[in-house]
Amino acid sequence: MQEIPKDAIKCLDKGFVRLVDSMGGDDAIVQSARVSYGKGTSKVSQDRGLIRYLMRHRHSTPFEMVEFKFHCKMPIFVARQWVRHRTANINEYSLRYSEARDEFYIPKSDQIEFQSAMNKQGRYGQVPDDLKNKVIDYFNEISDRSFEIYSELNEAGVARELARAILPVNLYTEWYWKNDLHNLLHFIGLRSDSHAQYEIRVFSDAMASHVKKVAPHAWEAYQDYAVKGLIFSKIEQNILSKRLSNSSIDDLLEDIAYSITASLHNNKPRNENELFKLYSDNGGLDNLNDFQIKWNIANFELGNVRELREFKSKLLRLKK
Amino acid sequence: MQEIPKDAIKCLDKGFVRLVDSMGGDDAIVQSARVSYGKGTSKVSQDRGLIRYLMRHRHSTPFEMVEFKFHCKMPIFVARQWVRHRTANINEYSLRYSEARDEFYIPKSDQIEFQSAMNKQGRYGQVPDDLKNKVIDYFNEISDRSFEIYSELNEAGVARELARAILPVNLYTEWYWKNDLHNLLHFIGLRSDSHAQYEIRVFSDAMASHVKKVAPHAWEAYQDYAVKGLIFSKIEQNILSKRLSNSSIDDLLEDIAYSITASLHNNKPRNENELFKLYSDNGGLDNLNDFQIKWNIANFELGNVRELREFKSKLLRLKK
Amino acid sequence: MQEIPKDAIKCLDKGFVRLVDSMGGDDAIVQSARVSYGKGTSKVSQDRGLIRYLMRHRHSTPFEMVEFKFHCKMPIFVARQWVRHRTANINEYSLRYSEARDEFYIPKSDQIEFQSAMNKQGRYGQVPDDLKNKVIDYFNEISDRSFEIYSELNEAGVARELARAILPVNLYTEWYWKNDLHNLLHFIGLRSDSHAQYEIRVFSDAMASHVKKVAPHAWEAYQDYAVKGLIFSKIEQNILSKRLSNSSIDDLLEDIAYSITASLHNNKPRNENELFKLYSDNGGLDNLNDFQIKWNIANFELGNVRELREFKSKLLRLKK
Amino acid sequence: MQEIPKDAIKCLDKGFVRLVDSMGGDDAIVQSARVSYGKGTSKVSQDRGLIRYLMRHRHSTPFEMVEFKFHCKMPIFVARQWVRHRTANINEYSLRYSEARDEFYIPKSDQIEFQSAMNKQGRYGQVPDDLKNKVIDYFNEISDRSFEIYSELNEAGVARELARAILPVNLYTEWYWKNDLHNLLHFIGLRSDSHAQYEIRVFSDAMASHVKKVAPHAWEAYQDYAVKGLIFSKIEQNILSKRLSNSSIDDLLEDIAYSITASLHNNKPRNENELFKLYSDNGGLDNLNDFQIKWNIANFELGNVRELREFKSKLLRLKK
Repeated sequence: MQEIPKDAIKCLDKGFVRLVDSMGGDDAIVQSARVSYGKGTSKVSQDRGLIRYLMRHRHSTPFEMVEFKFHCKMPIFVARQWVRHRTANINEYSLRYSEARDEFYIPKSDQIEFQSAMNKQGRYGQVPDDLKNKVIDYFNEISDRSFEIYSELNEAGVARELARAILPVNLYTEWYWKNDLHNLLHFIGLRSDSHAQYEIRVFSDAMASHVKKVAPHAWEAYQDYAVKGLIFSKIEQNILSKRLSNSSIDDLLEDIAYSITASLHNNKPRNENELFKLYSDNGGLDNLNDFQIKWNIANFELGNVRELREFKSKLLRLKK
Repeated sequence: MQEIPKDAIKCLDKGFVRLVDSMGGDDAIVQSARVSYGKGTSKVSQDRGLIRYLMRHRHSTPFEMVEFKFHCKMPIFVARQWVRHRTANINEYSLRYSEARDEFYIPKSDQIEFQSAMNKQGRYGQVPDDLKNKVIDYFNEISDRSFEIYSELNEAGVARELARAILPVNLYTEWYWKNDLHNLLHFIGLRSDSHAQYEIRVFSDAMASHVKKVAPHAWEAYQDYAVKGLIFSKIEQNILSKRLSNSSIDDLLEDIAYSITASLHNNKPRNENELFKLYSDNGGLDNLNDFQIKWNIANFELGNVRELREFKSKLLRLKK
Repeated sequence: MQEIPKDAIKCLDKGFVRLVDSMGGDDAIVQSARVSYGKGTSKVSQDRGLIRYLMRHRHSTPFEMVEFKFHCKMPIFVARQWVRHRTANINEYSLRYSEARDEFYIPKSDQIEFQSAMNKQGRYGQVPDDLKNKVIDYFNEISDRSFEIYSELNEAGVARELARAILPVNLYTEWYWKNDLHNLLHFIGLRSDSHAQYEIRVFSDAMASHVKKVAPHAWEAYQDYAVKGLIFSKIEQNILSKRLSNSSIDDLLEDIAYSITASLHNNKPRNENELFKLYSDNGGLDNLNDFQIKWNIANFELGNVRELREFKSKLLRLKK
Repeated sequence: MQEIPKDAIKCLDKGFVRLVDSMGGDDAIVQSARVSYGKGTSKVSQDRGLIRYLMRHRHSTPFEMVEFKFHCKMPIFVARQWVRHRTANINEYSLRYSEARDEFYIPKSDQIEFQSAMNKQGRYGQVPDDLKNKVIDYFNEISDRSFEIYSELNEAGVARELARAILPVNLYTEWYWKNDLHNLLHFIGLRSDSHAQYEIRVFSDAMASHVKKVAPHAWEAYQDYAVKGLIFSKIEQNILSKRLSNSSIDDLLEDIAYSITASLHNNKPRNENELFKLYSDNGGLDNLNDFQIKWNIANFELGNVRELREFKSKLLRLKK
């Protein structure tokens, strides 16, 4: 068995992910976005805000300006899922040109589960130990026997491109895989998801750990807006809007008016007289008296003013 | 001025969109999806459900199996935005090879607005009539004068590829443009949006009217899930979940338990005894007594059971 | 075993290629090219000339305007080569979602050959009969045994996505595959080549037979210019030009001058006086006397004038 | 007028090309190719040979592993040609978001030429001085007047996205442009060609100078095989083969047999007895006597044995 390169993250029993090279990071996203949207100052804090804005509004081209190249080794059935992401550049180990190596994926005991009844594509629930052992035995049997035959045919001089056709899809292959950050995040979003097959998730997670280091703001924004975003369809909005009382939405809107005011005040302090006007201009409905009471007791959440305003407009869409 | 082809939709003052050819429609989406996910019956009602499922879960490849080819004529500044969608195949009228034609876009009076202060990319609010007239006069002045010069240089034998460099971006150009449905919907999603520039929206809307006819279920699903979907970011969910009382979410969840029961019963009628069990199994918390009362008086919304269950799991994520 | 659809071309022992749909043909290429290069008349003979011109000068975008959709069934190891062509749209049968079927590729006796020593990727020379039989036995053994295990694990309820990992790459899979003509021709150019693996060549040839019917001029042009074109590198040109006597190149050039003259005359007859001038203008070096003698006896090859002129300029590059 | 960045190459009167970042070079091509084709030693001389082999046989994927990012500023009509290369990632300066700058391309006197009669897309032959001056005056007139109007409308508060529509296509724009080496070479192959418009060739040449430094072997191979390669179509081969005497081809083939022998001997010296056999095995037809005479007097060209053999097989295709 080949050794795993020192700078690689081990994946499954014999595979790995290794970051070979990368070009740019958070700074490159900001740099190219600023060509489109004009210059402006560039404090680090503003970089983060700009990256989050771009992600939120699905301006994907600046994320395409960052590039990653990985060296990966994985079973063929994993490679087959992986390769569906067609934007990447790939150079794979060729079994027409080179001999296969005796390296097969054998699942670990705790990954052997029953077919899920709910999710036709998934697994669910540990199988009994004797069935687990049987699975592992069978994987070993087919791996050993097919490689034995392959080796015999190979030694007899049979064409490699033909002999390899009896090898099972748990055979390891390897490749160089290069992709830009936008498409890499999309890959990770799908393949690190809980619905993805365990065996590809491991590789996706390994690549994710590199992305997190190379472009931390982009990574965080992708998590907040794409991965953990909650999408309500038009139909669900109809139900929500029918059942959520207007008054509970109004409560939320009131909170947001206070949060916007507090956030603006926090960015650039105003004197007391200006505050109530600011609050009213941002949709606050309390009168001056109530405003002053709440302002003095409450502990309003601060946030990004732009995001709070966008939130407000979403909530308004839910009102009857 | 060139006449607009009879089968074309007129766009702006001199442009058009014409559907030249298309391949497949809703049926082609279903057909290719069924290769991936197995056969099954194919009543038309099920086709719609499958298309909606694919859209909701962003399985985009079946939508790529439908292809559209348009013949379009639009001002250069519109073509410049359009061409950023790089998945399409394009053949454009060449000003190196052929002579420019005297066709320029002159905005109509009601499209001349002020620069928006809020949206750095948009326009907002009608300008006074005298300014409108000035704008139109200026468009005419530059169009006329630049074409006059172009024609003179052309007649003097100056290379066309050079002479064309003085023509303004309101000059009309035309092209054949071919794209698959997945990417076409993405285009329309961005360019028929209220934030898109008016002059490209007109063309996007014209293409949309063709898509609606060729693939009506796909179009409807795209509207419901992508265009009109409401996305709450992780941060917004935190605020929602902090401010929305658990009890109002519980009310929604109760409604959904009833809706699921009613929908299942509607699909395949059960006898009375089975109904309460079905309701409980689907998360209903009322006791038998309350259940029977509500069941008899209420008018529950019917829906797709799968969608209702997905909605339930989203709401659970909002509970404290 | 599944039956092969009636409108499909059988490939290998259990696979097939079926043209599901197509959009456009030679006419669509011409139509979109004419948007770019201006209108002009469109006799069928001119269509062919335009298509050949586009192919010769690698103007590929008009060929992208034609689209093909195939339904194909092939062994996994063939699918793995196929999928490297990333421009296509694909929907493949999913072994996570659906059960595998007991269909494996077993090579026919006359396809079992030795590994080529010269070409590290190919096969060369029939192996003895007993080795052939052994290969076939081994293919059957692994196919049968792996499917037996797969079925047992499947019945025991083990997750399909895991159980499938012991199946060999000679298992048949199927997909819908859609591509435009430009990229399809590139695929066929590589995969119908004698260096391609036999098992994918069969599928490529089947698709080629459809292309030939749908777009015959484009197919012919691709054969003449891309597939059967002979490329001499800069280095080879140096050798050619060192060893080919100038006089033998001059002989060729003379022939071409006569062919151009004859072709022009054939397109639009001239009177005798004009012919010699035409010949001289096109690089002919004979004097009037010699010209008249040759003209009257020789039988000059007619051709496309543009192509003959391009040929002349290539030959001139070889002269010392 | 904006200053040109210090590390940029000036292009035309106000534009530039600046290499912002790159990932990999010749070494990265070799590294990823070796994953596909097996390891082997890696002397620098072998790297060059491998890169040339890959280029010659159009194995393009290893070249896709190298990435370039440029910052460029060019007139809009140049950007319009450039953007047809759809594989690149682009972030362009937005005239919806930001104000236009008063920077227009004014052609230099010696670039003002007549329309070519032969090449409908080109220019040919200097125009008289007074016409040159007129062209320059006209470019200045339209540039100045359109910017004057644009500025006035802008100050009056008219929406930028509308006001910009009167600006001519000689206005400068800028962008970040990222592409992989394979597609970048294709771009340069087309746009540094003598048939490309002068104004884009300048930018292509500037990028080429960077490619040459970052990946010199890949650059050289592209020149030798793609740019300077001479392609003879099937029809031209027929003519060649009809007119080139077999004997002159045989002379070439003989030379090649000697060159192969000498090259093999040069790589690994053989004793005298072996040389004649080597020569005969490689297609030499002289008898031993003649061989020894020629071997001792001649000065055979050494070359890459693989390339010489490929050349031989091409020549054989030309024999009657």
